[in-house]
Amino acid sequence: MTSPSDGRERLYLYDTTLRDGAQTTEVNFSLADKQLIARMLDELGIDYVEGGYPGANPLDTEFFAEKATRKAHFAAFGMTKRAGRSAANDPGVAGLLGSAADVICFVAKSWDEQVKVALEISLDDNLAGIRESLLAARDSGREAMLDCEHFFDGYKANPAYALACVKAAYEAGARWIVLCDTNGGTLPDEVEAIVREVARDVPGDHLGIHAHDDTGCAVANSLAAVRAGARQIQGTLNGLGERCGNANLVSLIPTLALKSPYADMFAIGVDAEGLRGLTPLSRALDEILNRAPNRHAPYVGASAFATKAGIHASALLKDPHSYEHVEPETVGNQRQLLVSDQAGRSNLIAGLARVGIAVDKDDRRLTRLLAVVKEKEAQGYAYEAADASFFLLAKGVLGGVPTFFNVDRFSVNVERRYNAVGELTTVAEAIVKVEVDGEVMISAAEGNGPVNALDVALRKDLGKYQRFIEGIHLTDFKVRVFQGGTDAVTRVLVEFADETGARWCTVGVSPNIIDASFQALNDSIIYKLVTSGA
Amino acid sequence: MTSPSDGRERLYLYDTTLRDGAQTTEVNFSLADKQLIARMLDELGIDYVEGGYPGANPLDTEFFAEKATRKAHFAAFGMTKRAGRSAANDPGVAGLLGSAADVICFVAKSWDEQVKVALEISLDDNLAGIRESLLAARDSGREAMLDCEHFFDGYKANPAYALACVKAAYEAGARWIVLCDTNGGTLPDEVEAIVREVARDVPGDHLGIHAHDDTGCAVANSLAAVRAGARQIQGTLNGLGERCGNANLVSLIPTLALKSPYADMFAIGVDAEGLRGLTPLSRALDEILNRAPNRHAPYVGASAFATKAGIHASALLKDPHSYEHVEPETVGNQRQLLVSDQAGRSNLIAGLARVGIAVDKDDRRLTRLLAVVKEKEAQGYAYEAADASFFLLAKGVLGGVPTFFNVDRFSVNVERRYNAVGELTTVAEAIVKVEVDGEVMISAAEGNGPVNALDVALRKDLGKYQRFIEGIHLTDFKVRVFQGGTDAVTRVLVEFADETGARWCTVGVSPNIIDASFQALNDSIIYKLVTSGA
Repeated sequence: MTSPSDGRERLYLYDTTLRDGAQTTEVNFSLADKQLIARMLDELGIDYVEGGYPGANPLDTEFFAEKATRKAHFAAFGMTKRAGRSAANDPGVAGLLGSAADVICFVAKSWDEQVKVALEISLDDNLAGIRESLLAARDSGREAMLDCEHFFDGYKANPAYALACVKAAYEAGARWIVLCDTNGGTLPDEVEAIVREVARDVPGDHLGIHAHDDTGCAVANSLAAVRAGARQIQGTLNGLGERCGNANLVSLIPTLALKSPYADMFAIGVDAEGLRGLTPLSRALDEILNRAPNRHAPYVGASAFATKAGIHASALLKDPHSYEHVEPETVGNQRQLLVSDQAGRSNLIAGLARVGIAVDKDDRRLTRLLAVVKEKEAQGYAYEAADASFFLLAKGVLGGVPTFFNVDRFSVNVERRYNAVGELTTVAEAIVKVEVDGEVMISAAEGNGPVNALDVALRKDLGKYQRFIEGIHLTDFKVRVFQGGTDAVTRVLVEFADETGARWCTVGVSPNIIDASFQALNDSIIYKLVTSGA
Repeated sequence: MTSPSDGRERLYLYDTTLRDGAQTTEVNFSLADKQLIARMLDELGIDYVEGGYPGANPLDTEFFAEKATRKAHFAAFGMTKRAGRSAANDPGVAGLLGSAADVICFVAKSWDEQVKVALEISLDDNLAGIRESLLAARDSGREAMLDCEHFFDGYKANPAYALACVKAAYEAGARWIVLCDTNGGTLPDEVEAIVREVARDVPGDHLGIHAHDDTGCAVANSLAAVRAGARQIQGTLNGLGERCGNANLVSLIPTLALKSPYADMFAIGVDAEGLRGLTPLSRALDEILNRAPNRHAPYVGASAFATKAGIHASALLKDPHSYEHVEPETVGNQRQLLVSDQAGRSNLIAGLARVGIAVDKDDRRLTRLLAVVKEKEAQGYAYEAADASFFLLAKGVLGGVPTFFNVDRFSVNVERRYNAVGELTTVAEAIVKVEVDGEVMISAAEGNGPVNALDVALRKDLGKYQRFIEGIHLTDFKVRVFQGGTDAVTRVLVEFADETGARWCTVGVSPNIIDASFQALNDSIIYKLVTSGA
């Protein structure tokens, strides 16, 4: 057991966003998503990153072709060997052992009824499967662990058998035996009592907890298990996961790192810098999933430190900790009050530095820029992911951006009709009228869709500036609609790249998706011209 | 103390949706909203409905002009009298006593530091304010209670003073003294320990708990307080409330009503019928607030009983309670087996049953339908959220859907140009050519954007079918772009509602966002026609 030098006990965090989180309704990770999220978890300081089921589907097999983390353990998840064959001859186990994972997490049922009804094997065969699978993983030189599925229901129905599964794994050398509340219905007091019982037979520093949020208690269940002795917590970013989700690591980490008694008793792998990155990380995940972040999420939500009530706001100004249980900055969040000029100003200076604009903190133009940014944000613009649009907005207020060209008119048409061979087809075309230095150019283009057509037409002929934009191309396009209905506001985020591999992102907002796309495309071109010295 | 005849102890529910819930960012109740929500809470079987601050603002004063509940206590919330004047001469207390409330809930600070810093009065004056305010409310013939603001932080800082506030209220005849975790940072074990201490001095059946979700533990904190002796729980519908929200009564009620040990020990005012109304009630509140319901909400979320993984799905069909901690029907929800590419035949049958199509498991047409679904999913269609499109797809394969109308042609145009007063504007218009029973109709419409224009034009004239779709309207529109670039595939999800409140969701996929939108809009109309018996 690794112990930190300050005498606190080590508590391990195991992330299953890429495995259990992938079971979330409407979540479908691509390979690139998985690689990106694994890197984010690694940088955060998570101890274990569970990546999926190598061998069970092509995506996960490809993801496990090489190790996706640098510091964190990279864990593969799969079932124990089937009854009636050896671990060496089990294709599922082979898929796990053939992967680049350095930890193998087997899952086995620990509820006697489930072993009989769902697996239709004997209770002894299930125990043998646990032992032999763990030994096979250890023989391959890896750390091995067991997820006990249905552990709490199993323990309530037949404590001896549930415990036998745990002990079989411990005796076979499992580094961790994780007690899973698979259907999510166990309450904190039960979790605490049962984990305490288990910890009499198996050392707590080999026990983990895997909680689901079906009663709204996943975070509390995880804390209850730690109080009872468990030293590994499994969870997901933003509480992704099947049904109501898994224990939310983004809520748990600050509690463990900042709050008594946990912070006094335990050290975790996430340091102060990782903690400050938690709010941006949580929002980046939503960005990848194209979801609106939960404003009310503990610690990281936009409203988590917001105060609406007048009496609270004035008390808050007199004494911030009266309404703030932790300092928002420690988790990378910020207090939200009507009068947030100071906080706004320092955020703004940091944002400008990020896009390469140095401004003195006493520069009076900052007040105007802050007002412009707030007005834009009120309209629905978001600059967190759109650095290039933020750069142009700031340049416009601080120093001015040249007017390279004007788009006086554009027209985009989408038509569904029968084509020459009698098939129904949909065609999109765009016409753009651009004026450069008094010269007017009209360009037209077809595209797969209206935005593609507009993009191609817009970049077809910019006269003397054309040579600066020849190598750029659109690499990503995201759309979010606010407040339901096509009458609502649409926000478009666009990413471009050039031949050097540089990437930049811009934003557009309008009730009209084509207009929002035009704004973002236009910003992308202007950004390229400004940064190329055109 | 009322006790139910079965020997269980009575546990009281106190809803503060209309007071603390009104502090939620972006929530602004109208008078009609408040009246409607009070009726919903009353019918649910909530014991106390807190309506707001009569006398503090015109809306709440008007709302308290008459009693808004039939069975439930109707509670008014306000501050204890100010120091230096009598309760009889305090305008705040007068506002409360002049209302139609039958319960007055005073709030007072119980953290010594806060009394000094925020109120700037002596600790004794604060105690006197508590006593005199409660007596004034009791003298008016009402039930009186006290919310102890900052109780847990106060108790940790100065337990004697925090307890003195509780005892002063108890001795002045308060029916309830509610321990508030105002900044939401107290963890369940602390709540349990502190409430247990307080319950040594004041009977637990006079103690309440008011928890906030700043650590994700509001539900667990409420349960912890009940374990320690408290017999009133305060919370809100859907966990509305300042910052991260209050304890969510919609999560707590089923736990208290259905789960051990709470259901065995306590009786609550919500009966089995009220419980079955919980899912529709939770969604109705979101409707009033114009918010998308949280799919992952415990008990009532659309995904709360959803299973995506194939292995889980087959186990679930063998034995539902393996993955369901309560029966979904008890809370008015339903099991959802997701038709996703991870799923097989059993998910498909369950999916069909959900949309009202009964098919024998040996029906050979299932093989073809499964192949069609998989092919569609490979193209980017997702039916998890698009029940109506799934219904039409299945009907098409299994039995056929009538061809109500054909859209031979549509054209959508978006144009940016200078308007008559020289401003740059963007206009969208659509033309749709529909054929119904050999009759051709051409409709045109303008819109805020191209999808809105297309939607309006498409529903403008469907000839003899028009009467079936008069009451429908678009309520949500979501766009997801896959694999980067405008060349990529776009998935559009559209939700419609009709005048009865029924909602259905459809999907469209195409490289062209307008074409994808058209598919989804078209499916929505056809679904309405099929289910209306057109």
